[in-house]
Amino acid sequence: MTVPTPQKSPARRADAQRSISAILEAAVAALSRNPDASVSEIAKAAGVGRVTVYGHFPNRTDLVDAALARAIAQGHAALDAVDLVGDARQALTRLIESSWQLVSQYQSLLLAAQGVLPPGRIRDLHAGPVARVEGLVRRGQDEGVFRSDLSTPWLVGVMHSVMHNAADEINAGRLDPDRAASFITATVLAAFTAPGRRVPG
Amino acid sequence: MTVPTPQKSPARRADAQRSISAILEAAVAALSRNPDASVSEIAKAAGVGRVTVYGHFPNRTDLVDAALARAIAQGHAALDAVDLVGDARQALTRLIESSWQLVSQYQSLLLAAQGVLPPGRIRDLHAGPVARVEGLVRRGQDEGVFRSDLSTPWLVGVMHSVMHNAADEINAGRLDPDRAASFITATVLAAFTAPGRRVPG
Repeated sequence: MTVPTPQKSPARRADAQRSISAILEAAVAALSRNPDASVSEIAKAAGVGRVTVYGHFPNRTDLVDAALARAIAQGHAALDAVDLVGDARQALTRLIESSWQLVSQYQSLLLAAQGVLPPGRIRDLHAGPVARVEGLVRRGQDEGVFRSDLSTPWLVGVMHSVMHNAADEINAGRLDPDRAASFITATVLAAFTAPGRRVPG
Repeated sequence: MTVPTPQKSPARRADAQRSISAILEAAVAALSRNPDASVSEIAKAAGVGRVTVYGHFPNRTDLVDAALARAIAQGHAALDAVDLVGDARQALTRLIESSWQLVSQYQSLLLAAQGVLPPGRIRDLHAGPVARVEGLVRRGQDEGVFRSDLSTPWLVGVMHSVMHNAADEINAGRLDPDRAASFITATVLAAFTAPGRRVPG
């Protein structure tokens, strides 16, 4: 015999949604400042008890996963505003500049996620943003603007690696944050240039 | 009053050295297969008890640190054989090919280290290999073969990022390991080309 699940009233469901939303907002903010932020700190910032957090997220890993998913969804929505039509190189430059703001803002959260989630899960969570970059890179390849001797996923990975290199170099004190976007763009546009062609700029 | 430290006999010191060496060799091998290898597994592979391991390395983090230091020292020594004179592009291609073998061989060990050591410590342990790449990149810049509009440390970081991208792409099943070295070289040589110049190849 199965025990019937108690039905929550609409009011209680709305309360739970508000509570989850407050917890995730606090988790994104706290982990973006400190990758080691604890569940207690996040609960405090969200104005709820630890028990409430654990009621929604059974352990810290689940909370980090949900926080990263939320940050990526918000970032992905923000990138909808980037104009991706016209010259593929200029479109890529615009996309890199906007994406870099997000990578820079959320790098500590990403570090937290890398500490507890398998790489495959982090990749899956990025599927939306990756598909957007892939579409643009493929169009540039089809138009002969970007090299086609290397695969589309490889070029997308190179762009992300170069952005993460910028984050590392800033953390190591070797790169002025104000110059990061131009260093990334200059590197990626050269890396995407076909052998025998001139590097733009 | 201080208690005098017991002097170990030369024979006992030699025993301890052999024991440390066997533990580190086992640690490098085990962590290169599985980043989560435990102290017990490593002790077993080294043919010693866990207590002996803990006698030399008080915790797993110390052991991972020492294993990474050993792998880097051995890799750095192996790279002494790479001919770095002559055309900077060809020298860089040779250095990338040999370095890639090491990155590929030790990527699981590096992952283990990234899980327990701060990024600054991992960077410090790589100081020797990084200095070697830096010397070659700087010479290429001085000779006008590599771009000078981006800093030497930035270009060195880009080369390392592109190599780690190859490891990630192989793990994700999107890159044939046999093509990795050529993808890395093609990308790095293009990325190092000055604006207005033709990408080699």
